[in-house]
Amino acid sequence: MRQEIGQLEIATRGQGLVEITREVAGWIASTGIETGLVTLLCRHTSASLLVNENAAPAVQRDMLRWLDQLAPEGAHYEHDDEGPDDMPAHLKTALTGINLSIPVSNGCMMLGTWQGIYLAEHRTHPHQRRLALHVIGE
Amino acid sequence: MRQEIGQLEIATRGQGLVEITREVAGWIASTGIETGLVTLLCRHTSASLLVNENAAPAVQRDMLRWLDQLAPEGAHYEHDDEGPDDMPAHLKTALTGINLSIPVSNGCMMLGTWQGIYLAEHRTHPHQRRLALHVIGE
Amino acid sequence: MRQEIGQLEIATRGQGLVEITREVAGWIASTGIETGLVTLLCRHTSASLLVNENAAPAVQRDMLRWLDQLAPEGAHYEHDDEGPDDMPAHLKTALTGINLSIPVSNGCMMLGTWQGIYLAEHRTHPHQRRLALHVIGE
Repeated sequence: MRQEIGQLEIATRGQGLVEITREVAGWIASTGIETGLVTLLCRHTSASLLVNENAAPAVQRDMLRWLDQLAPEGAHYEHDDEGPDDMPAHLKTALTGINLSIPVSNGCMMLGTWQGIYLAEHRTHPHQRRLALHVIGE
Repeated sequence: MRQEIGQLEIATRGQGLVEITREVAGWIASTGIETGLVTLLCRHTSASLLVNENAAPAVQRDMLRWLDQLAPEGAHYEHDDEGPDDMPAHLKTALTGINLSIPVSNGCMMLGTWQGIYLAEHRTHPHQRRLALHVIGE
Repeated sequence: MRQEIGQLEIATRGQGLVEITREVAGWIASTGIETGLVTLLCRHTSASLLVNENAAPAVQRDMLRWLDQLAPEGAHYEHDDEGPDDMPAHLKTALTGINLSIPVSNGCMMLGTWQGIYLAEHRTHPHQRRLALHVIGE
């Protein structure tokens, strides 16, 4: 049994979903671990991780609109000194979460056919986002 | 230290919560691991995992009604070619999440007294759902 | 490779967020594990775990108000025999989640600069809350 730690840097283009399934799979392959558990941590409070349908782009647009409705800009937040998109970004991050753990078998994450892993950028402007990665197994 | 990978198939009867605590506990027992960490992954984008009160059935009915309010059918989604319950199912899945990791001690998950693990089916019709399982420990 | 199991008891003062980053870090240090994965489980159905900004207190107040809006008291829940704050507490717990797994490197959790771990108490009255902890690594 052994483990590896890694980091992934993702450039976002402002509010939206960036699929990172391939990047995570590539990192697992680089460790040579065939059977185990991979864990991802998004190291931010205004970006999050989401497993979502990877086929229809309309699903992603509906998801973003729904998050905007649940945590709208302009809702009279007490914390607004970093801009009107900041507090909604914290709320969306709390709602969707910042970590995922996924079993690995035959060198592949055991995701379902339609599941993709997305980094969700909740700020209006582009950001450089960092994920911490951990895999344990053999 | 060793690990095991498994799968669990759960038949749902349409929208609702199916308690799976016993099935997961049975799988852990079958591996013989007494101390460790178990991870569950729901391999779908319209069903999710939830830890919820396992005593009062009214809690589960209130939970389902609340999810319906937060992600209602008929809310003019762009993605609606798989039926009116499809996009709400994706949203409820994002809200509640698709993975859980639970410490194991003395062969038992360290859940609280009132905590049960539920598979939440968000589609109207019955489905066969698959969970990936991983346990590591000794 | 080795593992440790632990528990953490947190006294809450009623509805609010209690930062527990230091307590979790202290427990990891006590195990002597330098590289690995730590997992936290909140063993309750009306309190949850949240990673949130640890700098501006206004963020935490906005977060609590937002949770109150999404899961309000007095919304005609079927389950109300444990008081008007009980069902909203279950809903907020489902929304924010009860477990976290965080990679550990050089003896420290790989959290981002602004990330703090919070126990979110969703009941009106003070409670004694218990977390189960697991760390694996070397």
